[in-house]
Amino acid sequence: MKVMKRLFEVDNWKIIESELHKDEFRLAESMMSIGNGHMGMRGNFEEMYSGDFHRGSYIAGVWFPDKTRVGWWKNGYPQYFGKVINSINYLGIRVLVDGEEVDLFKDEVKEYSRELDMQHGVLERKFTVVKDEKETAFHVVRFLSVAESQLAVIKYSAVPVNYDGEITFIPYLDGDIRNEDSNYEEDFWQEESIETGEYEAALVMKTKGNPFGAPVFTVSAAMKIEAEGDVVSVSPNQKSEYADNIITMKAEKGKASVLYKYAAVTTDRDHPKDALIAKGKAVLAEQTEKGYAALLEEHKAGWLKRWEMADVEIEGDAEAQQGIRFNLFQLFSTYYGEDARLNIGPKGFTGEKYGGATYWDTEAYALPLYLSTAKPAIARNLTVYRHNQLEGAYHNARQQGLKGALYPMVTFTGVECHNEWEITFEEIHRNGAIAYAIYNYVNYTGDKAYLHEYGLEVLTGISRFWADRVHYHAKKAVYMMHGVTGPNEYDNNVNNNWYTNVMAQWTLNYTMKTVQYLKENGHADKIDELGITSEEIEKWQDIAANMYLPYDEEQQVFVQHDTFLDKELMPADELKPEDRPINQNWSWDKILRSCFIKQADVLQGMYFLNDQFTEEEKRRNFEFYEPMTVHESSLSPCVHSILAAELGMEEKAYEMYNRTARLDLDNYNNDTEDGLHITSMTGSWLSIVQGFAGMRTFNETLSFAPFIPKAWKSYTFKIVYRDHLITVKAEGTNVHLSQEGPELSLKLYGEDAVLPENGKLSAAINSAVVQ
Amino acid sequence: MKVMKRLFEVDNWKIIESELHKDEFRLAESMMSIGNGHMGMRGNFEEMYSGDFHRGSYIAGVWFPDKTRVGWWKNGYPQYFGKVINSINYLGIRVLVDGEEVDLFKDEVKEYSRELDMQHGVLERKFTVVKDEKETAFHVVRFLSVAESQLAVIKYSAVPVNYDGEITFIPYLDGDIRNEDSNYEEDFWQEESIETGEYEAALVMKTKGNPFGAPVFTVSAAMKIEAEGDVVSVSPNQKSEYADNIITMKAEKGKASVLYKYAAVTTDRDHPKDALIAKGKAVLAEQTEKGYAALLEEHKAGWLKRWEMADVEIEGDAEAQQGIRFNLFQLFSTYYGEDARLNIGPKGFTGEKYGGATYWDTEAYALPLYLSTAKPAIARNLTVYRHNQLEGAYHNARQQGLKGALYPMVTFTGVECHNEWEITFEEIHRNGAIAYAIYNYVNYTGDKAYLHEYGLEVLTGISRFWADRVHYHAKKAVYMMHGVTGPNEYDNNVNNNWYTNVMAQWTLNYTMKTVQYLKENGHADKIDELGITSEEIEKWQDIAANMYLPYDEEQQVFVQHDTFLDKELMPADELKPEDRPINQNWSWDKILRSCFIKQADVLQGMYFLNDQFTEEEKRRNFEFYEPMTVHESSLSPCVHSILAAELGMEEKAYEMYNRTARLDLDNYNNDTEDGLHITSMTGSWLSIVQGFAGMRTFNETLSFAPFIPKAWKSYTFKIVYRDHLITVKAEGTNVHLSQEGPELSLKLYGEDAVLPENGKLSAAINSAVVQ
Repeated sequence: MKVMKRLFEVDNWKIIESELHKDEFRLAESMMSIGNGHMGMRGNFEEMYSGDFHRGSYIAGVWFPDKTRVGWWKNGYPQYFGKVINSINYLGIRVLVDGEEVDLFKDEVKEYSRELDMQHGVLERKFTVVKDEKETAFHVVRFLSVAESQLAVIKYSAVPVNYDGEITFIPYLDGDIRNEDSNYEEDFWQEESIETGEYEAALVMKTKGNPFGAPVFTVSAAMKIEAEGDVVSVSPNQKSEYADNIITMKAEKGKASVLYKYAAVTTDRDHPKDALIAKGKAVLAEQTEKGYAALLEEHKAGWLKRWEMADVEIEGDAEAQQGIRFNLFQLFSTYYGEDARLNIGPKGFTGEKYGGATYWDTEAYALPLYLSTAKPAIARNLTVYRHNQLEGAYHNARQQGLKGALYPMVTFTGVECHNEWEITFEEIHRNGAIAYAIYNYVNYTGDKAYLHEYGLEVLTGISRFWADRVHYHAKKAVYMMHGVTGPNEYDNNVNNNWYTNVMAQWTLNYTMKTVQYLKENGHADKIDELGITSEEIEKWQDIAANMYLPYDEEQQVFVQHDTFLDKELMPADELKPEDRPINQNWSWDKILRSCFIKQADVLQGMYFLNDQFTEEEKRRNFEFYEPMTVHESSLSPCVHSILAAELGMEEKAYEMYNRTARLDLDNYNNDTEDGLHITSMTGSWLSIVQGFAGMRTFNETLSFAPFIPKAWKSYTFKIVYRDHLITVKAEGTNVHLSQEGPELSLKLYGEDAVLPENGKLSAAINSAVVQ
Repeated sequence: MKVMKRLFEVDNWKIIESELHKDEFRLAESMMSIGNGHMGMRGNFEEMYSGDFHRGSYIAGVWFPDKTRVGWWKNGYPQYFGKVINSINYLGIRVLVDGEEVDLFKDEVKEYSRELDMQHGVLERKFTVVKDEKETAFHVVRFLSVAESQLAVIKYSAVPVNYDGEITFIPYLDGDIRNEDSNYEEDFWQEESIETGEYEAALVMKTKGNPFGAPVFTVSAAMKIEAEGDVVSVSPNQKSEYADNIITMKAEKGKASVLYKYAAVTTDRDHPKDALIAKGKAVLAEQTEKGYAALLEEHKAGWLKRWEMADVEIEGDAEAQQGIRFNLFQLFSTYYGEDARLNIGPKGFTGEKYGGATYWDTEAYALPLYLSTAKPAIARNLTVYRHNQLEGAYHNARQQGLKGALYPMVTFTGVECHNEWEITFEEIHRNGAIAYAIYNYVNYTGDKAYLHEYGLEVLTGISRFWADRVHYHAKKAVYMMHGVTGPNEYDNNVNNNWYTNVMAQWTLNYTMKTVQYLKENGHADKIDELGITSEEIEKWQDIAANMYLPYDEEQQVFVQHDTFLDKELMPADELKPEDRPINQNWSWDKILRSCFIKQADVLQGMYFLNDQFTEEEKRRNFEFYEPMTVHESSLSPCVHSILAAELGMEEKAYEMYNRTARLDLDNYNNDTEDGLHITSMTGSWLSIVQGFAGMRTFNETLSFAPFIPKAWKSYTFKIVYRDHLITVKAEGTNVHLSQEGPELSLKLYGEDAVLPENGKLSAAINSAVVQ
């Protein structure tokens, strides 16, 4: 694959832009995004910019049900398309030099740099602006605190290089903000209240009402300003949905005029609606008391602590190193598990495309990473999130006239809010991933209490859905599932998608196993409470035992869906370069009829249920399907990397790793300007840990089988596994494991091994012989 | 089937509403629509009405490319959704009694009646309004002239019953008109010019520009007013997009004050843009010179002439009689073939739903009717229409990356303008119907010159499309067609729809036959001109010979599509009454996965290619598919009625006839308020002529096999066949044929018979023995 666009220097810990990319401004803005779980923003400039850009700042959990846009609405279509909404601009600071506005699009700019320090979560800009021969050197530092997530901090400094004059700063709050992707160009916000004083202002905005019963949100941004320098005048102003301070300072050649802007963003998700400004002011008072330097240190310490548990070090491949860190940085900026009401949006806080906050990506790709890189409570929150939305899932099934629970493809509340029928009520395999996540969480953590507290209720809802969604084909004596879309969205409305059917079968079996376990472990009451009868179990048993799983005897592969083998089959290599990516160059008609696969489909099943297939089965299916796969979903390469690694196809595994790790850094899919591919960022971590290092956790047993990609000298990562913090280092011809925690039995290259209490263990690569 | 809503009295020639249906106002407006091919309107009131209604007046060929509304636009999706646009209101006349506005929604109304006289194409209203105890009797007559199609005439008369006072008429032109179904609530019109004088006004409106390269239209309405009575004052007024005259007349008890409003509607489709007002005034001057009574007579004579050629008389069943006449009336109001640039929109001039002007309905259902009920030039215009749009059809195929010509599902210009992918590039069977219409036209009329003049070019484009759209399945050694939607739109994106495949095969064969015919008849140049090579013919030959046509050996039926028999099959009468119609009560998911069939699919093929299947084949397939058919397309019952008639299932045939004939009259589908089902109105005619009378024309041979439905005493219809005007009367136990024209050999009940020159022929029903 060609590198599409690399605007940034390769660096271990930083994303560095050393020239102003006016033509790729949106792409650079996406890449320079920061967030702290509570809120986040694209890498917009504080000051005025008259070129093309996309101002975007988003608050976790604050969304709007935009009216659906479909050609012809039919029963069962979702009523609205929920979207993350662009909210109050608390970032803005206009800057004037002797009354002339600084505008990096029009002004002469020298010594420009923008750096995102991923280690500390700080965005920094330096640049010199020349206006009428007056040169001014600027330095801007910005962070969204991970110590106090309602706090944003900006330090904006200006030094006249060759003149004496005046610098004017106009820090402001602007509530007149719209989504670029509003379906009907509507404004989602209205002003609730506003106040302005010297060095301070506060604005409260509320989302407009809606006919869908979706919640209305109230958010407030309060700002407090500090000026360092010779202030000449301060003038507070306000108008509808907008408040500012015009602060003019005498600026002496070589001396810095500095403005600190502290903003507190509070919402009625966390506080009473009427107390938002008061709460914001309290946060500002408390935090600014500590001073800028202390706030910055607290924030940096927070990020360092995250890295301590989660960093992956790669020696010998700076690009790969930068890639994995960028991905972890952006993931943690989006979600660090503090709030069980939140989930991991596909674009995080970096853009607007897609809508919704929650996709099956979370269960399929993100959960394993959070299980291993953070405290168990965080992964638990991700699974509890779905339990909290069970009512919405029942609603979705009812909308289709079906029993049980259908988890949504896209949602904020559990209620489906996407808008393509071939996705919303056909891509139902997501239900399988949500059931699987329960298994994954319980199996990884050993937290079996989860099953009666939350797990069984969700599993029962999903199993009831599958049981109603299949139909019995009397002549063939099998259960079939018609009208689905598998993970490969390049094929819509197919029958008997193997992956969907196998995950439905798996769910039914796992639910029955869970019922059995709870019965035997003192939780029979839970089973009764859910009304699970022996007749229902029998029905599930019958469906699971007789589920139709398409298989081709001749090629000995599972068949993606009923008529897949009737297509004209050919490898993706036979495509002309100008045809790729096909989703940008081909008609949807041609794509749907082609054999080309967007992302793992049969192979997704072999990844999830990895312990249930022989190596030979995996190899045959990989060799059959991977060549037809175009990997045009950002979620595709990692699954193939992991399976390739397992099958000893090291080069393929490495190729796929690079595609996932630097997807946005190198803009592989030519769409990073719309925002980052947040949920797929887990792919690079999965490729290293489950791929190169071969980590598996089936049957409550941790195992590894590491190899080192040829281009790398070594790699090191940490995982949290139950009460162990384990470091895995693969270097040269050896693999070294060490841990903090009690003695642990595990498997290395398939052989039993023991990692001593707080001890170490080394072995030669591809051999479990302890050295 | 239950009668949904019957607001109107049963009458042979009229639609009579004898009370004001405020709750069903839109439904009544749809039913009272009138049109003259050039323009048409819903049955709106001239005067003010403050209740719910849908003002709609439309001009043939004047449309707007509304921005598409799709969830996620993909390559190959049409850029815009073209729609018939609501245009200048030239109908309106406000009426005041002693300064108080007449409003039938609020006022006390007595002796209300609204009558649509279908025989003469006149809409008439009578009602008495009581305001402050003052009673005024109104009488309003309206027609859109079929003698001068640019002319609309209204006679509005008011008689004070119990007082002396003043009547004020405010006839106006209003250009500030919007479509109710605008995707983004946009206004499509802007004012071009306006002028007002005493007793006259003129307004020119222009459609707004668009980024799609679609045409911009300019239309003008000019009005001329005549007042009969004691005029007190006349005051012309105008504002933006609006012009009127306020005309006050002294009104004496028992004496009529009468206002005549003549409107001329001219467009730049017919005249230079700058001359529209002048042309309109010229029309008004020329026409009004004749006087109201003469204009009315001319208009009535035009309608009587149409009926002379096309009327169907039914004795013994007044409902059926009213049904067939209503359908013919509305069809001829929509299209009478004068303009080859026009086609038959699915709602004609009676509503806005659906968009577009041209569907495959025209070729599949309307063409046979126009072939038999009007001069050959009219049917020829319908087929030439598609030839004129061949370029658009090539464009549509290119948009999908395919060769040849893909005629659109919905269009104004040949370019596809619908907005659901499962329809636009999947429901491609329409291409087959367009090819079939060429065969139908040439076979019926004997106009073989059509083949080299127009036919072959269209057939070649369509055959090239089919040849590129199929793919070869080497192992099964057949050509397949994946990713289509058949006529049964309750199943989307299926593989190897039998109907689509068989029509593609048929097209290829017919194209090859046509090539052969032209070669042998001195038109080899045409073949060269189109670049048809012997290699291409061989390829077509190979595809036609090896087209995959799914067939089930066990049931001996053609299979609707590859996996149809894997569905849970059950007859529609097992559905609960509350589930029907399923498209209003079921989710789309449930509908797609069900076996239920919206309209003839396999059976549509057996209808078109009726001479190619044995009676046994027809019976088996009818008995297999009809029970699963829910007939929720207005196009469904007639095909089943015809096949049932052929198979001797007389009751089924009659049941299906009634459903098609009174679909709107009895509001079967509960959606007539949106407008009438114009294109499906051909169904009742087809059911009588091809069904009950068994008319066939295959192989240039006219044949009949009439029976009489039990409930009827007799039926009589006329058909134009080549140079014969034939009357068919089935009465009691006999059938009588008579004609104007030369001797004609035909078949009666399968036996040879001769209809003498300008002579008669009788036979007993079900026997060809001439009596």
